[in-house]
This record gives sequence, structure tokens and C-alpha cells, in this order.
Amino acid sequence: MTAKEILSHVDHTLLGVTATAQDYLKLCDEGLAYGVASVCVPPSRVRLCAEHLAGRLAVCTVVGFPNGYADTEVKAYETAAAIRAGATEIDMVIDIGKAKERDYESILADIKNVRAATGTHILKVIIETALLTREEKIALCKVVGDSGADYIKTSTGFAPGGATLEDVALLREYSPAHVKVKAAGGISSLEDAALFIKVGANRLGTSRIVKIVQGMEGSSGY
Amino acid sequence: MTAKEILSHVDHTLLGVTATAQDYLKLCDEGLAYGVASVCVPPSRVRLCAEHLAGRLAVCTVVGFPNGYADTEVKAYETAAAIRAGATEIDMVIDIGKAKERDYESILADIKNVRAATGTHILKVIIETALLTREEKIALCKVVGDSGADYIKTSTGFAPGGATLEDVALLREYSPAHVKVKAAGGISSLEDAALFIKVGANRLGTSRIVKIVQGMEGSSGY
Repeated sequence: MTAKEILSHVDHTLLGVTATAQDYLKLCDEGLAYGVASVCVPPSRVRLCAEHLAGRLAVCTVVGFPNGYADTEVKAYETAAAIRAGATEIDMVIDIGKAKERDYESILADIKNVRAATGTHILKVIIETALLTREEKIALCKVVGDSGADYIKTSTGFAPGGATLEDVALLREYSPAHVKVKAAGGISSLEDAALFIKVGANRLGTSRIVKIVQGMEGSSGY
Repeated sequence: MTAKEILSHVDHTLLGVTATAQDYLKLCDEGLAYGVASVCVPPSRVRLCAEHLAGRLAVCTVVGFPNGYADTEVKAYETAAAIRAGATEIDMVIDIGKAKERDYESILADIKNVRAATGTHILKVIIETALLTREEKIALCKVVGDSGADYIKTSTGFAPGGATLEDVALLREYSPAHVKVKAAGGISSLEDAALFIKVGANRLGTSRIVKIVQGMEGSSGY
């Protein structure tokens, strides 16, 4: 798989809490230069990035992020506000405690509330695989499949662990075919990225892939 | 300082993402039994706790938590929703990246938006001291002082570091007298708690103090 092909799957991501406007504009310019799928930025930075990009690249943002235990009506409101500000993709986090209670009905209702607010924009649902049992992951594949969301996503990047190849393969196996898979958290090399895509990831949430390709250009081109 | 006196300053806190309804009800019962100032729970658990406590104990919740980069209008909406659900205290997080840009005007406007939504309920403002320089902390004492908030609070508990005695003393020194101080993150013993109070903390966000006092009862009473 070529670097260019890998980059086309990347949500070029900056979600650290100390980043500044300058950092986000740099992220956008890198995203444009390297042909990524989107930039992924915090809600408070969506307008800045959407205005800077002016439709040349998708702007992804996060909802109920990273802890997932915001009220469902607040998640829906946050989604609508993000879309008004220029976001075209929404990565929401489920309420993980509800999965621990096996209250999958409330998780389904939560996702559907956000889905209603996204309109035709892309919705990805983060289940935070590092905190779930195999049984819970499988149950959530069905919930996300039933919800009308476009993607199931492994991780926020703020939990003790990120995406694993095993988890991505499991989400691919147990999600209906209409649900795509996004791997995020800890993707650290082009080889890694290619393997995640091979086992079923359609998108990769990462900041490192662009940096790695930049480094390759600095030495030998790509 | 007696354990009872220390407990009266404690926001008995459970904000882990995998906690269940049963854990929150236990937290409430412990809060009642040990005479704490409030229980602090996620937004999606406010209604459960407020109905269980039925006015016998204050319910604190978090807004824009823990990353602080939600849109300000979403923070205000989340605050209003939390109060409708039964919260009587709101701990909001500032947009830390804006502090790194020295955009203190936007931080002041953000806090004022949330203040407008709290009405007469208590508002605490988390600045996440572990990620700030001394200069930024001092500037934020003034911003919080000007905002009409009731408290300045050190930490979310989700950053690499929590409250330090040095930071609490600094917030006390540079905040106007009408602003109280809350220390949170890593308070691990009664001695620690007493020291935080001594240097200026009016509230302590912690889950451990109740557990420690429970342990003392198990051995020798308190």
C-alpha cells in the first residue's frame, strides 16, 4: 500500500487541550498538502478550520468527548452547533457506564439522537474498546449497526489504550456491512497503518502518519 | 482539624467513565452518611442522584469536561440542562488552548456565558493548573475573579497532574477574596486534605477521603 493511499484514509487529528489557533491552521494546511480524508479538531476550533479550508477538505469534530457521559440532549445540541460552525463529520462517544450496565437501549437512543442532528453528515461512534469486554464490544457492534451511524470507532485516544489490530478485526467481523470501521489511538507507523487498513479499518485517526510522510520527504521523497 | 471538619469540605467525586448506576447510588449514600459538601457526578447521572438524594445533599456536576474545548454556547446549554436535571453546583472547564494564546477575553466571555446559565447556583471554574505556567495561572485568577464565578478550581483529575499545595496557595493569593478555591486531583490522605485547607482550599474534590474515614471506622472509629 502506498503512503498516498494510506493518507487518503487518515483523519488528521489534533485534540490535545493546549493546542493553539496556529497549531490548528498548520494541521489544516498539512491536511490539504497530504491528501488526508479530513482534519479532526475540537468543537471550539471548527469554525476557524472550516473558514480556513473553505470546503477544500472535510472538517471532523468530536461530541461528548472524551468521556461520553454528557446528556444525550446536550450531545445532540453540540452536534447541531458543530455542523452550523462548519463540521461535516461527527465523532461521538457513547456513555460507557451504560454499556457496563448492559443498558444498550439507552446507548441506541443516544446515538439516534445524535444521528438525527447530523442530517446527511458522517457520524462515527466511539465505543472505547480498551475499557470493554469482548462481549460488550460485540453487543455494541449491533447497537451501532442498528443506530444508522456510518462508522464504529475504537478509541478516543484519552483512555489507557488505543486501537489494536485484534479489536479492529473484531469490529469488522461483528458490524453489519453498511457500518465502516475507524481505528484511532496509538497508530505509529506506515506499516501499522497499512495493517489496520488490511484488517478492516476504513479510516485512521492519527496525527503521526502525516509527520512520518513529512519525515520521508525530508530524506528521500515518498 | 477533625475528620468531620475535613469531610464538610469534600465534594465526594465519581467521574470515571465505567461507573454504573449502582456506584453512583453508593456514592450518594456515602455522601449522606459522612456529611460531605456535595457529590460530584457526570451530567448523565445528575437526575439519578438528585432524585435519590431529594434535596438532602447538593449535587455537583461537570460542564465542558474534562477537555474544556466545547463551544461556549454548548457549555451554557449543558449547564442549563444539568440544573433542570437537579444539579445545584457546576464545575466547568476553561478552553486551555485559549489561555495558551493569551486570549483571556474569550475565556472571560465563556465563563460569563456559563454563569448566566447557573443563575444563583454555585459555579466553579477549572483552569487545569498542571498544564499552565505561573503567569497563566495568575492571569486566570483575575479572569475568574472578574467573571462572577464562585470558585477557581485546580484540576479535572484527567490531566497528567492534580492539585499541589503550591498551586492552591498561589490561587488563594492571586484570586480576589470573593472567589473561593477548590483543590482536586490526587488528594490522598487526611493530612494532605488538612494541608490543602490550611493553604486556602475551601473545597476538596476527591473520592479517597470518605474511603479513608470508612477505613478508620473499620479499625478504631473516628
